[in-house]
Amino acid sequence: MRDSSSDFGLLDPLSHDSRSRELTSDGAWLQAMVDVEVALIRSLVRARLVPDWMDDVAESISFAGDLDAGAIAADGRGGGNPVIPLVKQLGAHADQRRAGASDSVHVAATSQDVLDSAAMLVSRHSITEISRQLDTLAGSLAQLANLHRASPLAGRTLGQHASPTSFGLVVAGWLDGVLGARRRLDEVNAALPLQFGGSVGTLGVLFDIARARRTDAAPDQVVSEVVVDLAGRLALHAPDSPWHTNRIPIVELGAALAGVVGAIGSMAIDISVLSRTEIAEVSERLGAGEGSSSAMPHKRNPVTAVLLIASARRAPALVATLFDSLVAEDQRPSGAWHAEWTALRELLRLAIDAATAAVSLAGRLDVDVERMRSNLEFTDGLIYSERVATILAETLGKSDAFELVAEASREAVRTNRPLRVVVSARLAGADHDDELRARVWGAFDPDASLGSASAIIDRVLARARGQL
Amino acid sequence: MRDSSSDFGLLDPLSHDSRSRELTSDGAWLQAMVDVEVALIRSLVRARLVPDWMDDVAESISFAGDLDAGAIAADGRGGGNPVIPLVKQLGAHADQRRAGASDSVHVAATSQDVLDSAAMLVSRHSITEISRQLDTLAGSLAQLANLHRASPLAGRTLGQHASPTSFGLVVAGWLDGVLGARRRLDEVNAALPLQFGGSVGTLGVLFDIARARRTDAAPDQVVSEVVVDLAGRLALHAPDSPWHTNRIPIVELGAALAGVVGAIGSMAIDISVLSRTEIAEVSERLGAGEGSSSAMPHKRNPVTAVLLIASARRAPALVATLFDSLVAEDQRPSGAWHAEWTALRELLRLAIDAATAAVSLAGRLDVDVERMRSNLEFTDGLIYSERVATILAETLGKSDAFELVAEASREAVRTNRPLRVVVSARLAGADHDDELRARVWGAFDPDASLGSASAIIDRVLARARGQL
Amino acid sequence: MRDSSSDFGLLDPLSHDSRSRELTSDGAWLQAMVDVEVALIRSLVRARLVPDWMDDVAESISFAGDLDAGAIAADGRGGGNPVIPLVKQLGAHADQRRAGASDSVHVAATSQDVLDSAAMLVSRHSITEISRQLDTLAGSLAQLANLHRASPLAGRTLGQHASPTSFGLVVAGWLDGVLGARRRLDEVNAALPLQFGGSVGTLGVLFDIARARRTDAAPDQVVSEVVVDLAGRLALHAPDSPWHTNRIPIVELGAALAGVVGAIGSMAIDISVLSRTEIAEVSERLGAGEGSSSAMPHKRNPVTAVLLIASARRAPALVATLFDSLVAEDQRPSGAWHAEWTALRELLRLAIDAATAAVSLAGRLDVDVERMRSNLEFTDGLIYSERVATILAETLGKSDAFELVAEASREAVRTNRPLRVVVSARLAGADHDDELRARVWGAFDPDASLGSASAIIDRVLARARGQL
Amino acid sequence: MRDSSSDFGLLDPLSHDSRSRELTSDGAWLQAMVDVEVALIRSLVRARLVPDWMDDVAESISFAGDLDAGAIAADGRGGGNPVIPLVKQLGAHADQRRAGASDSVHVAATSQDVLDSAAMLVSRHSITEISRQLDTLAGSLAQLANLHRASPLAGRTLGQHASPTSFGLVVAGWLDGVLGARRRLDEVNAALPLQFGGSVGTLGVLFDIARARRTDAAPDQVVSEVVVDLAGRLALHAPDSPWHTNRIPIVELGAALAGVVGAIGSMAIDISVLSRTEIAEVSERLGAGEGSSSAMPHKRNPVTAVLLIASARRAPALVATLFDSLVAEDQRPSGAWHAEWTALRELLRLAIDAATAAVSLAGRLDVDVERMRSNLEFTDGLIYSERVATILAETLGKSDAFELVAEASREAVRTNRPLRVVVSARLAGADHDDELRARVWGAFDPDASLGSASAIIDRVLARARGQL
Repeated sequence: MRDSSSDFGLLDPLSHDSRSRELTSDGAWLQAMVDVEVALIRSLVRARLVPDWMDDVAESISFAGDLDAGAIAADGRGGGNPVIPLVKQLGAHADQRRAGASDSVHVAATSQDVLDSAAMLVSRHSITEISRQLDTLAGSLAQLANLHRASPLAGRTLGQHASPTSFGLVVAGWLDGVLGARRRLDEVNAALPLQFGGSVGTLGVLFDIARARRTDAAPDQVVSEVVVDLAGRLALHAPDSPWHTNRIPIVELGAALAGVVGAIGSMAIDISVLSRTEIAEVSERLGAGEGSSSAMPHKRNPVTAVLLIASARRAPALVATLFDSLVAEDQRPSGAWHAEWTALRELLRLAIDAATAAVSLAGRLDVDVERMRSNLEFTDGLIYSERVATILAETLGKSDAFELVAEASREAVRTNRPLRVVVSARLAGADHDDELRARVWGAFDPDASLGSASAIIDRVLARARGQL
Repeated sequence: MRDSSSDFGLLDPLSHDSRSRELTSDGAWLQAMVDVEVALIRSLVRARLVPDWMDDVAESISFAGDLDAGAIAADGRGGGNPVIPLVKQLGAHADQRRAGASDSVHVAATSQDVLDSAAMLVSRHSITEISRQLDTLAGSLAQLANLHRASPLAGRTLGQHASPTSFGLVVAGWLDGVLGARRRLDEVNAALPLQFGGSVGTLGVLFDIARARRTDAAPDQVVSEVVVDLAGRLALHAPDSPWHTNRIPIVELGAALAGVVGAIGSMAIDISVLSRTEIAEVSERLGAGEGSSSAMPHKRNPVTAVLLIASARRAPALVATLFDSLVAEDQRPSGAWHAEWTALRELLRLAIDAATAAVSLAGRLDVDVERMRSNLEFTDGLIYSERVATILAETLGKSDAFELVAEASREAVRTNRPLRVVVSARLAGADHDDELRARVWGAFDPDASLGSASAIIDRVLARARGQL
Repeated sequence: MRDSSSDFGLLDPLSHDSRSRELTSDGAWLQAMVDVEVALIRSLVRARLVPDWMDDVAESISFAGDLDAGAIAADGRGGGNPVIPLVKQLGAHADQRRAGASDSVHVAATSQDVLDSAAMLVSRHSITEISRQLDTLAGSLAQLANLHRASPLAGRTLGQHASPTSFGLVVAGWLDGVLGARRRLDEVNAALPLQFGGSVGTLGVLFDIARARRTDAAPDQVVSEVVVDLAGRLALHAPDSPWHTNRIPIVELGAALAGVVGAIGSMAIDISVLSRTEIAEVSERLGAGEGSSSAMPHKRNPVTAVLLIASARRAPALVATLFDSLVAEDQRPSGAWHAEWTALRELLRLAIDAATAAVSLAGRLDVDVERMRSNLEFTDGLIYSERVATILAETLGKSDAFELVAEASREAVRTNRPLRVVVSARLAGADHDDELRARVWGAFDPDASLGSASAIIDRVLARARGQL
Repeated sequence: MRDSSSDFGLLDPLSHDSRSRELTSDGAWLQAMVDVEVALIRSLVRARLVPDWMDDVAESISFAGDLDAGAIAADGRGGGNPVIPLVKQLGAHADQRRAGASDSVHVAATSQDVLDSAAMLVSRHSITEISRQLDTLAGSLAQLANLHRASPLAGRTLGQHASPTSFGLVVAGWLDGVLGARRRLDEVNAALPLQFGGSVGTLGVLFDIARARRTDAAPDQVVSEVVVDLAGRLALHAPDSPWHTNRIPIVELGAALAGVVGAIGSMAIDISVLSRTEIAEVSERLGAGEGSSSAMPHKRNPVTAVLLIASARRAPALVATLFDSLVAEDQRPSGAWHAEWTALRELLRLAIDAATAAVSLAGRLDVDVERMRSNLEFTDGLIYSERVATILAETLGKSDAFELVAEASREAVRTNRPLRVVVSARLAGADHDDELRARVWGAFDPDASLGSASAIIDRVLARARGQL
């Protein structure tokens, strides 16, 4: 038997601040399955395929809390999924309400119809929460990008100082990623499909029942109305065809969720890097006891950023498992479907946790603009080399300018002198006029080095306003 | 030194019938990089930032075949990517055409701008080919689905006969997957973005040059015009912001490609299963020497289906690598970017190969409708149990009907008698009238068992017509 | 706040019959962490670095059930891992037992020392259970292989009948896989390492304390003795060096666990295929209510095999996550370590569940040797083509024999006649003597077609005896 | 048709300095396949199952360069693998040498026997090269670890300064990882198995031929001798059983290769971090033109480290593909086997490239011990907090000492004063004697802070000596 003292989040720290477990727990999944069964009853009532009084029965069995969830889970071992024992319990409850009512429960459906549709409902609720968090996050990032649009810091490529950029642009890059991930999640959310095909995808039972019980309409017509009505009740998309073994909807959902986790991970790794002791340009504001260490009294760790990176490292493999399940044989595959369940749930959890923690992190981000400025001095001017070459190119041509600055850079490093001094000396030696040297000297100005950063930020902010 | 006698597709059989290598070879990639550099020159000419005569120079250096590709590849080791040596060669060629022309080559761009944009061009060409193949595939599948809309075969779940379905519906399911994957690929294709941000994403050099060379317009305006013009020339989307470390576009592309490969894989595994010796309902028509074995003279292997399954098993891991690269630090990450290159290319190749091979497979699919019918007899009627129960439910109620048929099924297996006989006997024993028995007897009719299959097929076919 | 009504195995059916949750629950993990802390106290007592009476205190705090586990998990959010709040609670409990005792708790250790070592203990307990199950499984398979060493069935390659083999050899193949996976797991198990390095891997605090409190011995000597003693107490291997960022031990463990799951998955997919309605050579014996369907009264699904396949499809991605974490920077990485926790636990769970379910499946496998024989007739002799060609080769040479049989096979298919008849006719037409035709006729004998199957089985069985 | 102008390493920079393409090219694979066929002929000669003169023929067809490799690759499309056309060409060449010789080519083997065994040969050659490089690497690292055993630098956890460690210990950690990965690779290498089972694993053809041609010995005996002799000729392990669908050998090989790549990746990411502009404690010595940028004249990128990180990010997904292929049905699976080929080859390439580049990187690593020392000052003493607390604990007890230092750390940050001053003042304020303050003052000494680093280094070096 399963150990009753189950998991309480010991190895999943981010889960403690988020609604991920509430929204995706076994209890939530079970309720979603019940919601599907109940909605099906109501659609059948409306289509006059089961008695009117089933509406009352449906109401009376609509709360998953009344079920013996443990027994359903355990009995799922025998049938390979929890729907069979669920239907049995629901039927018993229905019969208690009114004898014979169980005959109108789970009519025309197969296990996969219920489990897949429930997965869509759980995903819908999870995405609602993720979207809510992402909106808040995007708002914070938009504010931050705007505020720091002219705060220069060292742009870094391959870990090396490259050219100056603005912190606002860095944040706009995070925002751009979050907006992109959010947009895709919205698209996927709007298309979350109902699953309803019956045992082999023909809706054969529903068809036969419609033929038997509804002489006033063509069975195909009745079938189609039930599908549309059921989709409407569950606020899911009514697909052209059952998708028992066409799992494109699942991989699109999984990819969108992993996009969210990854976009946040990209922000988190930047924060983690910029928080490094030697860089210290941003820091995660910590409450009492947060970020501390069991060994080192002074430690103030960027805990949230680190845990967000960890989340983003876990998501890709789960996506792979879902894509692997595209290769699904027959009318219900032998394992490919079953392998999806926990991978999808884990992705939902990672995304809720990540979005929630990112909101917290963005709201607690201390930005040290002075440190950003002073770090620009680390290379004694080398970080302006591209800009210097650009200015010199107007006079010398690009190639010669590049070569001159490259050589000057090497000399500056070798002789431990500022680049501006070395370049200036070389220009003087080559009889260039003072005006050129003055212009070059002016290149070493962080505030004048930001190019189109501000305009780019504006475009991203405009999109954020449009999208949120 | 690299062995010159490189790979010729020994381990990649599907590549031999497709354009995958042509479209994604190093040569194709190099040409795409040249295309980006040439388009940039032209955009700069148009913006009056470099001399008019550079249009001629651009023309003269626009053919990658003139470059020493091997040297570019080898020298890429030193700088970490092939753009640096490419720019050097392009500059030398430009200077040969007109002295000083190299000063107007690769202006304002960084390596990643060129490589990422080239990747988008290669992807564009690949997607064009994939789409072309998918259209043909969808056409074949639509025809097949229509033709076999009323061809009954055993629906199978978890490997077991479940209820009858129609082969047309099975094919419509494949088509549904292909259409879904195709739709997503279209969306991604339409949004393939230009990469252009300069060294750290500010477009600082372009901004400075615009300021220096164009006194008639605000630099931000000039910058923006160049970006839009360049995107237009390359037929790429002009993004709000550079995406050097926001890799959502890459994961969306990768996921879409893997969706194509997986949707085809789902068709392939069905064909592989239905081709099994004991099932033999479909077979891959083979040419001389195809599908044979080195050991067994009689062997006729469903080679294409098998190789398509293999492709679909390779794609998910490559997608995971791309998602992993979402976690990209700084203004250009230390490894995350570099890890994408071959993963993306491999996904392009798998998708081209798979789409091409699927067209071939769909065109050579022999369907044995007689065998499908005779296989329905394998269980001596058990496959109609759901339908029998549905009919009985009208009289007995669903629960009792289900129970009766379940017991009858066990008895039929135990006593090795047809289900219809056992059920009939049980009904007779329970004093049910002849009319009910007649109706039950009628349930054992494959042609009457297809439910809404035909209507579902029509919906999918309508979507196919609308989408293609 | 975290939802208290957590998961009860709804989406993990195999967990209900196994000890996986008991052995790897948060409670088990917490107890393992306490075990490490307690053992550390005892090693320090023994090394005379903390007072003797700490042995009593250690005893008194050694039961994780006394802790407020929920608070530890929730507070782990703040510090990024659960060790910090654990140490705080343990210290408080220790001080209650004897004032000042908390000063001797968690001495010289860092969070990662405790969590990694605890992971090794949880892994040890899990592997003990896995090994126990694998032994039983191997025993069953050995018996089955022996029993069916001469039971012929169709060997199938790429889904097609190829040549006859024996079911005993098929089972010996499963056994071979299980033995290989088991052997590797044993090796890994024997080498599970203690983690103990202090905050940055120098064991600096332990060294300083040894210098301060033990004037009778060189600090390095004392340090080394503590490490060896601690490893001994926990029955772990004392490594040369801390492995905070050298995660080879973790990937070796993860790969060994995934090997177990995959080897079982290989057995499961064979059973799933051989259970197909049209093949029906083996079946999973089902209890009441097992293997049934919510829709089809007659359904008897091979549920355990299917769920085992699902497990084997989930494991590879988790292994990838672990390998990804090899790239771990600094003295403790920012996320790579944290990403391992749940991936490792999930692999442990999958392996325990899979091994346990495989024992059950092997014990409930019905083998229908008659069906195997009759299925050999499916191709009307084609399955013997290799054998016929081999016999003919003695007279005609291999190439001509192969060609003759290949042509005869095509003719047999085309004319719907048995291969033996067609070959015989061709031989007669070519004036071959009756003796050759008789020999060829004799080739169509399943019992004479098994080659060295029996000898191979014997070798595998001998290894099983040696290894178990 | 396949584009002949194939790949020349444009997207794989590390391949240009290594033997990876030479050792794993299609040509190498083809030669290995020929080697297997040739060795099989010789083993059959020796067993007197084919004529003696076949030794000469074998010699004459032993060079893959004589074959039309392109045709073999292209024709592999038809049969699903390249062995069938290879055998045809080999047979034709053999017949040219001596009529009828083709009858003794590829006797008793199936395609998978040849391809799998060839994969083992290619792996063997690759591992030999990897091992050679790893030995050199380990030698360099051992030297470096020894040299810098007492060079203090900041130990960093979660990106933050933690406590001092020595650079020698950091390097010993890299070495420890490399030695671990190397040891596992050795184990796997020693066990690389021959594949030889015939079409369905029974070695039925060999058995039948032995019975027909060798009346002097039991067929099983002859079969066994051929297997052992063939394994010996190819220097492969003779397994108990064919492993056509037991792919444990493949996943063990793949995991070992990914271990190598990942262990090197761990070294590379450390170098990448320590090379950051603000840290600058190590740097990759660059030749002319190396590490430069297309945009920034001053750029000196740690290119090799970056490319090694990229390699380590690509390997995990490939391992996952191999583990996925453990789930292999029948006697030869429909796709699982085929999916392994390129994944395994890519892992071999990544490992050769990584090992080779790591040797280069380790040989060009400039270590700036002065910078390491000065970086220790970044926190104005906070990095010694653990040590200070340890010393104070001797007087105050651990808890009070930890609390005092934690508070002092916060005060030091708040007031921007050195930790030593703040602690000293607090001690003075609490009437502690000068002797304690002097001891605390002494804690701020990097050279005295290295704990057991040197002893740990010695242990790793000793293992390196033992293992290499």
